Amino acid sequence: MKIGFVGLGIMGSAMASNLLKAGYKVTIWNRSPDKYSAFLDLGATVANTPRVVAESSDVLIAMMATPDAVQSVRDGDEGIIAGMSSGKGYVDMSTVDADTSLESYRLAHEKGALFLEAPVAGSRKPAEDATLTIMAAGDQELYETSLPVLEKMGRKILYLGETGKAARMKLANNLVMCGMLTSLSEGIALAAGSGLDTAQLLEVLDSGAVTNPMFRLKGPQIAANRDFPTAFPLKHMQKDLRLALKLAEEVGQPLFVTATINELYKKALTENLGDADFAAISLVIRNK
Amino acid sequence: MKIGFVGLGIMGSAMASNLLKAGYKVTIWNRSPDKYSAFLDLGATVANTPRVVAESSDVLIAMMATPDAVQSVRDGDEGIIAGMSSGKGYVDMSTVDADTSLESYRLAHEKGALFLEAPVAGSRKPAEDATLTIMAAGDQELYETSLPVLEKMGRKILYLGETGKAARMKLANNLVMCGMLTSLSEGIALAAGSGLDTAQLLEVLDSGAVTNPMFRLKGPQIAANRDFPTAFPLKHMQKDLRLALKLAEEVGQPLFVTATINELYKKALTENLGDADFAAISLVIRNK
Amino acid sequence: MKIGFVGLGIMGSAMASNLLKAGYKVTIWNRSPDKYSAFLDLGATVANTPRVVAESSDVLIAMMATPDAVQSVRDGDEGIIAGMSSGKGYVDMSTVDADTSLESYRLAHEKGALFLEAPVAGSRKPAEDATLTIMAAGDQELYETSLPVLEKMGRKILYLGETGKAARMKLANNLVMCGMLTSLSEGIALAAGSGLDTAQLLEVLDSGAVTNPMFRLKGPQIAANRDFPTAFPLKHMQKDLRLALKLAEEVGQPLFVTATINELYKKALTENLGDADFAAISLVIRNK
Amino acid sequence: MKIGFVGLGIMGSAMASNLLKAGYKVTIWNRSPDKYSAFLDLGATVANTPRVVAESSDVLIAMMATPDAVQSVRDGDEGIIAGMSSGKGYVDMSTVDADTSLESYRLAHEKGALFLEAPVAGSRKPAEDATLTIMAAGDQELYETSLPVLEKMGRKILYLGETGKAARMKLANNLVMCGMLTSLSEGIALAAGSGLDTAQLLEVLDSGAVTNPMFRLKGPQIAANRDFPTAFPLKHMQKDLRLALKLAEEVGQPLFVTATINELYKKALTENLGDADFAAISLVIRNK
Repeated sequence: MKIGFVGLGIMGSAMASNLLKAGYKVTIWNRSPDKYSAFLDLGATVANTPRVVAESSDVLIAMMATPDAVQSVRDGDEGIIAGMSSGKGYVDMSTVDADTSLESYRLAHEKGALFLEAPVAGSRKPAEDATLTIMAAGDQELYETSLPVLEKMGRKILYLGETGKAARMKLANNLVMCGMLTSLSEGIALAAGSGLDTAQLLEVLDSGAVTNPMFRLKGPQIAANRDFPTAFPLKHMQKDLRLALKLAEEVGQPLFVTATINELYKKALTENLGDADFAAISLVIRNK
Repeated sequence: MKIGFVGLGIMGSAMASNLLKAGYKVTIWNRSPDKYSAFLDLGATVANTPRVVAESSDVLIAMMATPDAVQSVRDGDEGIIAGMSSGKGYVDMSTVDADTSLESYRLAHEKGALFLEAPVAGSRKPAEDATLTIMAAGDQELYETSLPVLEKMGRKILYLGETGKAARMKLANNLVMCGMLTSLSEGIALAAGSGLDTAQLLEVLDSGAVTNPMFRLKGPQIAANRDFPTAFPLKHMQKDLRLALKLAEEVGQPLFVTATINELYKKALTENLGDADFAAISLVIRNK
Repeated sequence: MKIGFVGLGIMGSAMASNLLKAGYKVTIWNRSPDKYSAFLDLGATVANTPRVVAESSDVLIAMMATPDAVQSVRDGDEGIIAGMSSGKGYVDMSTVDADTSLESYRLAHEKGALFLEAPVAGSRKPAEDATLTIMAAGDQELYETSLPVLEKMGRKILYLGETGKAARMKLANNLVMCGMLTSLSEGIALAAGSGLDTAQLLEVLDSGAVTNPMFRLKGPQIAANRDFPTAFPLKHMQKDLRLALKLAEEVGQPLFVTATINELYKKALTENLGDADFAAISLVIRNK
Repeated sequence: MKIGFVGLGIMGSAMASNLLKAGYKVTIWNRSPDKYSAFLDLGATVANTPRVVAESSDVLIAMMATPDAVQSVRDGDEGIIAGMSSGKGYVDMSTVDADTSLESYRLAHEKGALFLEAPVAGSRKPAEDATLTIMAAGDQELYETSLPVLEKMGRKILYLGETGKAARMKLANNLVMCGMLTSLSEGIALAAGSGLDTAQLLEVLDSGAVTNPMFRLKGPQIAANRDFPTAFPLKHMQKDLRLALKLAEEVGQPLFVTATINELYKKALTENLGDADFAAISLVIRNK
């Protein structure tokens, strides 16, 4: 199977490298060409436009940062769709909203091609280690064809059903992550305010049934209440909270706690914390 | 060192057994005597009253279910304090509020004895396996003397400072646990409401940075939204939320999210869920 | 000045009658013609389509129930816009979102006409008594021309600025109304739960600085906690809360209390209270 | 009927004056004697201690600022209770918690006297104009005896039932007032943030069914978002919110909105707004 790969950012680079190392023939394209040399060393072929990548491959994988970026490589005369045709597959591993995915699905099908949205959970390290969690939704036939490829990039791969479900699953996942971190911030704020050693609170939490890697990574940052190196920007988390609340409203599900958390995140945006990590919510919560 | 042990419920039994198995001489007392035979087989001595336990031991450990039960074995002519004297230590491993601990501290010191509050995190299994987390506060001298004994019951043992800090640490710990579970419930409610497979949400969460034993245990119960076998009663969690909010108010720390969670737990109490596990909050949250 | 009037529902009928009684020449149109006879008696002229109303009048007033209804009389070959031309004015007194108003403004200007959005606060009785509050926004020239006409329908008439501001003003107004009623419901719930006479609470409130007509009207309904005759449907209030929160999010303004109120209203929708009055929120709040 | 009056602060002075002007014989006492001369001119008699006031009167009225002040004039050898005996009545018009009132009731009854708690709604102006709202609870016999006296100080006088109910009624009343003002603040914040004229929002609100004196008084302060002259200190309102939530918790009534408002008020305390008027909550809410 010939693979195309569009989008060689931090995540895409790691993922494409893993495919090349696994022996796949990969044709690549990136907005800025300065990334190419490392991939040429690994045996990749470079194409001039996303359309050419699509034409040269059986399955094209895209990994873009935003819905706008997805559109910029997907649409137009030199876009991915322009190179799609019957028998080909378009796997979009970018994290986008359900509407963008549904549009990609529609456009691919117009050309007789198949479509899969396949956003990932996990950041740089799991991408490099090929231990990402991949949530796939869309054409099941394409899921089955591309599963061996996905397995070279992720450890946990799930097929969720029709297009749009992967986007929604990410919202539910992020809602829980964000709730956990906000409660951790409130617990640490209470501990600090009442004269406890916040590092000891982290030890207690880590020694019990709630021990988890995120608390081990971000807990010390929240305990220190400064320096929140951005792994997942707060403004993106707020956007996901907004989308989760919108979805909840559409399906008639009240979410009292998430609604309150969203206001805290909106407050954080007004304090110019949008580009910090979402753990910087601690700065809004903590009084001392 | 001669050990006394008062209170042989589910937790106390497991903890006292571990002390006996470690070779300590242990004098025991329990409200109902039907527990004694197993301990006699392990070499324990039985005393007639808590006072006698105190008189027969260097360090007396108590493990009671409630502040009222603590008072019932502590006070009065045949209570623990009546048997305390200079050189002895009273280690209360029950989970009680700071006021009860401060009173125990005062009473022990009136008799010239030392006091340590040492509540635990963890339930039956960690008690049996001697892997409890023990949060100790009070007389540091007694902490150091009794540390070898505590190490026979727990894996993680922390000294937090003056009396009252262990009670406060439990509140901060429970606030975080409760927040995590409530956010999990909202995430699962959103997933269920929007047509996702809740078991797949649990898989996604478990494959990422937030994986934790509590979600693995209680997540399937929340996904099923029924059968919440009581490990920690919802009404006790609500009491801890109330005490955490009271403490936060005293120290001038707003807790928007915890305040909202507390209202959900109050709502659960009005729906007669007080004796179910605190994971039954899902029944209040989830609409479908 | 020749007036056109499109939409003779409960509100529109009362408003058009007041114009006729004030001596204006009014050409009318309504979706169902069974309303016409009463207006013919008052001297109105009936037109066949909204387009004809527009052609026959200097200023056309529309009063429709929903944005969809606005579009149905505005667009198409026989719609209001088709009859608009330079020198004419289109005054839309329907309550619609800012986007609908901005589209109406654009369409009117394409034909060389002017546009004013002019939603009202107040329901049937103030419409009959010509004591409505009218919030106008859009072309100031048209505002000034039509002010004498508006004064025949309302007592308080405000010009707010560019198109869209009237829609936003209604959201802010409804947010406050809804917050007042929700707090009244919580106060009554607390009174009822703690053995107080809720009618006495209403007397106390009415005797002090917060006395207001809405509490006098809806307070007894909330105290009785049943029978909420629909003046303003709960589902419409929830929609306005949603739009208010959306607007707040766009302008970076956290609204913790309104966000929580919105969840209560969403909860009410899940309990099939959408068609009851928005005072029925009491049924969701009150426990006894 | 001979009246005693203890406590001649801003409120008490106005109330005692009204009794003297109505022709009652009044014996007075105040902590600082510099208030006496004006009352002597009105025909009052001065006593040396609260006990002497009680001995010289059939019905003693007290009007103190805090529960502590109530205790200071009530208890001890020269306190009100020391002068109470069968046939006398003690009417406490101070705003205190239910526990303080219940203790006053108990102490009065021990001496064979009757007790009434009778806190007021309204501040200086209604006190001067004898238009206060008076919420009475306790011994109904004393209520009936003293009603003619109360009618010289207030316009609306309610008998609520057993001792404690007046304190609870004030909590419910203040919860509603506070909720109204907080929603007004959020509405004004939304208006300001989205480019509306906040003065126009106040006009719209004032022209409709929610028009009320409190909005007319405090609305312009909130619209200006500065200068909040203290009529009712924010810290006292926060205390009442806390007590209302405590009462709600005791009676099993969730109050989602009030709980969120309480966190906003706690936030205001951390920003040193405790001594400002409770309308200063606007400073915490508004972003621009």
